[in-house]
Amino acid sequence: MTYCLGLALDEGLVMAADSRTNAGVDYVTTFSKLHVFQPAADRIFILMSAGNLATTQEVLNRIRRDLDQPRDTAAITDPHRERSRIDLLSARYLFEAADYVGRVSVGVQRDHAPTLHQSGVSAETTLILGGQIAGQPHGLYLIYPQGNYFAASPQTPYLQIGETKYGKPALDRIAEPDLSLENGARLCVVSLDATSRSNVTVGPPFEVAIYAKDSLTLTHRLKLTADSPALRSLSYSWNEGIRGVFDHLPRFDWEAMGEAPAQRIPT
Amino acid sequence: MTYCLGLALDEGLVMAADSRTNAGVDYVTTFSKLHVFQPAADRIFILMSAGNLATTQEVLNRIRRDLDQPRDTAAITDPHRERSRIDLLSARYLFEAADYVGRVSVGVQRDHAPTLHQSGVSAETTLILGGQIAGQPHGLYLIYPQGNYFAASPQTPYLQIGETKYGKPALDRIAEPDLSLENGARLCVVSLDATSRSNVTVGPPFEVAIYAKDSLTLTHRLKLTADSPALRSLSYSWNEGIRGVFDHLPRFDWEAMGEAPAQRIPT
Repeated sequence: MTYCLGLALDEGLVMAADSRTNAGVDYVTTFSKLHVFQPAADRIFILMSAGNLATTQEVLNRIRRDLDQPRDTAAITDPHRERSRIDLLSARYLFEAADYVGRVSVGVQRDHAPTLHQSGVSAETTLILGGQIAGQPHGLYLIYPQGNYFAASPQTPYLQIGETKYGKPALDRIAEPDLSLENGARLCVVSLDATSRSNVTVGPPFEVAIYAKDSLTLTHRLKLTADSPALRSLSYSWNEGIRGVFDHLPRFDWEAMGEAPAQRIPT
Repeated sequence: MTYCLGLALDEGLVMAADSRTNAGVDYVTTFSKLHVFQPAADRIFILMSAGNLATTQEVLNRIRRDLDQPRDTAAITDPHRERSRIDLLSARYLFEAADYVGRVSVGVQRDHAPTLHQSGVSAETTLILGGQIAGQPHGLYLIYPQGNYFAASPQTPYLQIGETKYGKPALDRIAEPDLSLENGARLCVVSLDATSRSNVTVGPPFEVAIYAKDSLTLTHRLKLTADSPALRSLSYSWNEGIRGVFDHLPRFDWEAMGEAPAQRIPT
């Protein structure tokens, strides 16, 4: 399993991923799920994935190949270029980049679906793409296995893929667009930490990418191993803090402290 | 959807359930999912359900009918009675009561499966049975739709059914067998509250049953509506407390406060 999440904040983007993969419970390995593309000085893209590992790697490889091949330079300047000629270098809007990545993903899945289908294995991968193209706002997209996509918004500034439920309560309480980038990174880490406590298929190292808007370069990139001081201190402080809050919750009306009377109904 | 959970504590049992049911998103109703049976002075059973509402109601009705019909009194005293003659009144061990409830559940599902299967609807229900029979320890069982069952243990003192993931992180941090009954009830409420914040198909009123071991009667039974002072104050205190913990988490090494340096890798 996998858990990746991203925050679209006023100040920029925070994207974070665990790095545990498993094919069954007896083949558990570590792979990075957070990938950065900077095909030109005027653009940066960060891509995270949850799903079939082979599909994901081939999507990444095809994106790199498209950037590596002699470029369709006409597409960069042609305002009426066809959708199929757009890639990470020629995209002028972030949604065009999301659309391109979605098309690559659909293509990889289509190529392998017949044989995978025979084995009852899903070729699907779900992706989160964050980034910015100079002159456009920064943004964060979730790209479905079917290739369509939607963006995070101020009302819901977070996107999640993979094992999303355990880490959602913390986001629902705290995620707001006006969080600082550092608070956003801490929120991502506690959401990942909660998930890895409740589901052994999600685990460190946790990778975190912090992007300050309009900088067009990564501001910070962290790799938090299980024994790193940063992860240990965040995890410990969060856990102890929550236990402390629990110890001081209001009492029921029949308890000594008498706060917060509960409505009792006859048994 | 539904979320029910139970805690098997040293001091007794706490069992709690939301009361929202839905058939699709456009038919959302309120039903109690927590049911108490006291067929004799020497025994008490608390049953919670997640799954097909019609199955659940018929399970409850058949259990009540079995208690209502002229009793197989011989089964109560016959040490070698057959499994099929055991019900809530004649069970001598809690596991026998769980086995009986499982058999009733399987019977109801079997009776309706042919027509439901044609409509693509699941007849399944998953149950949690807690209680005590005099002379035996108190206990808590999860009963699968297939009729088999397992008990909570000191290592894992909680059982959950329905929409279990959102409320699990709080349990994983706090649930221990030595919690007081009141702390157990507070933990159930915060776990339910977290779930209802993240999933609209789980909602109040929350019902909570508290059973002090060896009392053979319910100690407290609460029905916490959305606007009850007890639920509002617990929910508010928990949320504000968690936000406060978040605000005081250790800083990354590049922040002013300089606590907890994070391991940075080159971008």
